[in-house]
Amino acid sequence: MKRFTVTVLGSSAAMPTAQRNLSAQLLTYGEQIILLDCGEGTQMMLKKLRVKTGKINHIFVSHLHGDHFFGLIGLISTWHLLGRKTPLKIYGPPMLQEILELQLKASMTELSYQLVFFATQNEFPAVIADTGHLIVKSIPLKHRIPTTGFLFSEKSLPRKIRRSETDKYGIPLTFMERLRNGEDYTDENGNLIKNELLTISPPEVRSYAYCSDTAYDDCLPGVIMGCTMLYHEATFLSERAEQAGQKMHSTAAQAAQIASIAEAGTLMIGHFSARYDNANLFKEEAEKYFSPLLIAEDGETYEIGNQADLSRN
Amino acid sequence: MKRFTVTVLGSSAAMPTAQRNLSAQLLTYGEQIILLDCGEGTQMMLKKLRVKTGKINHIFVSHLHGDHFFGLIGLISTWHLLGRKTPLKIYGPPMLQEILELQLKASMTELSYQLVFFATQNEFPAVIADTGHLIVKSIPLKHRIPTTGFLFSEKSLPRKIRRSETDKYGIPLTFMERLRNGEDYTDENGNLIKNELLTISPPEVRSYAYCSDTAYDDCLPGVIMGCTMLYHEATFLSERAEQAGQKMHSTAAQAAQIASIAEAGTLMIGHFSARYDNANLFKEEAEKYFSPLLIAEDGETYEIGNQADLSRN
Repeated sequence: MKRFTVTVLGSSAAMPTAQRNLSAQLLTYGEQIILLDCGEGTQMMLKKLRVKTGKINHIFVSHLHGDHFFGLIGLISTWHLLGRKTPLKIYGPPMLQEILELQLKASMTELSYQLVFFATQNEFPAVIADTGHLIVKSIPLKHRIPTTGFLFSEKSLPRKIRRSETDKYGIPLTFMERLRNGEDYTDENGNLIKNELLTISPPEVRSYAYCSDTAYDDCLPGVIMGCTMLYHEATFLSERAEQAGQKMHSTAAQAAQIASIAEAGTLMIGHFSARYDNANLFKEEAEKYFSPLLIAEDGETYEIGNQADLSRN
Repeated sequence: MKRFTVTVLGSSAAMPTAQRNLSAQLLTYGEQIILLDCGEGTQMMLKKLRVKTGKINHIFVSHLHGDHFFGLIGLISTWHLLGRKTPLKIYGPPMLQEILELQLKASMTELSYQLVFFATQNEFPAVIADTGHLIVKSIPLKHRIPTTGFLFSEKSLPRKIRRSETDKYGIPLTFMERLRNGEDYTDENGNLIKNELLTISPPEVRSYAYCSDTAYDDCLPGVIMGCTMLYHEATFLSERAEQAGQKMHSTAAQAAQIASIAEAGTLMIGHFSARYDNANLFKEEAEKYFSPLLIAEDGETYEIGNQADLSRN
């Protein structure tokens, strides 16, 4: 089973603090690395963590508030200066392309690599990408400007053949592909042999839902139901619920309530307002409604997986 | 005499290194703080150095290569989030305004303060600003895209009255203003009393020339002649003089030769290519042609003043 992790590069809302950078996360699946949002300073954080950035071929930008994308043009420029050749796929709101192209034009830069842009919409959930390993679905979020989250799901694996059983029942080799896809087998005498006797279930599909900036949204659980890990913003504590509503952000309690309704495996919260300097308050508030809970910490890497499996390791 | 200093916020060329941030400097004159260029990460560096950023009301951007301005929109946004009210004056190439406005539009941001934009040209040197304390002249530089340096000069002060002497010669109070401006006095008997007897010279006008990105340019000394401190880029060592020429950057030797011809008081070099990790090599090369020499180091503050005065302190 390939390793599936998320590394937090920045967890501060709106402006950086001494401890927390602006929004960005790395999703790693085996050798593949995907960047989620790219606040100012992301390239410095990638350098600090010695990330092999040449492996980043997909970047997903949730929305055009500066704390989520002002670092993108710098990263794109640095790759150009390093002579990158591999095309880069960017998924984000339509205006992002215009902003990037204007800045490249101003510096008369003809990039050394191809930049392939895919515009997102936030009207309805849709499959928007296949990274080879992961299927990516956009998640409409409720924010002041058009914003999408992203749900990354492993491709479902075929079932595994139990060779001893298929030999015993004399299943022809030509039927193996259909067995892997879950079909039952009927032999020449009309006896039905159930697929479960002949194959083993593949590991459960793991998934990561990235919900960057959003007000409490009761449509959200339906889209991310049963995800292995949910990242949900928690800009404020409940004491500022009114402000959260006005600014279309969430409280720690609201994030945990969404995780609970969505039956998420694990909840990670981040995007903390710079006014707070004690993340434990967020933990205490959220854990009243949901656990297991993770507090996003810059530079930390978290495994995405079944909690029972993880604790067994 | 007001304190006049420059603080280096970033001294790496093109991309950040573990030791050096991207181009930005703070010019401080008494209480006034001016920002020169604003590479990505500048707002983090300002926070780290605990700069009172509310005192920054003027920003000068030399050109639109990303390493000199990608941090500007983030700083502008953070000030907005902090509720800044004081207008901000930005001087830079015309397209900078378009880039900033597009990004504010994308995030539907109506700034809490006024942003006043002044477009620069790099055809000829021109006085472009008066900060109240300093007169600012643009310096055409020779680079791949339109680039201007900036020369900051103290306003020349009036001469000081020697009260004992003006009493002795019975100079009327109504003539004092003319004395301060350097005129001689002729008494009722036709005797000429030289101004130098009656007044003291004001301190020498100090000036700082900021020449961010430029090829060796023999027109430059004429514009900055006699400046108190010259900051001149030195991206390469002479071993890469050809590359410097192609990329329209300078070597350490060329920077020192310009300082020598321009009879600068002190030379500071920076904007070192990320390929070098030993700034001493730049020092050794430049000192063959000019001293006193400073190597720009991130976070360090340097006094702008007559070397003899400074060493006396």
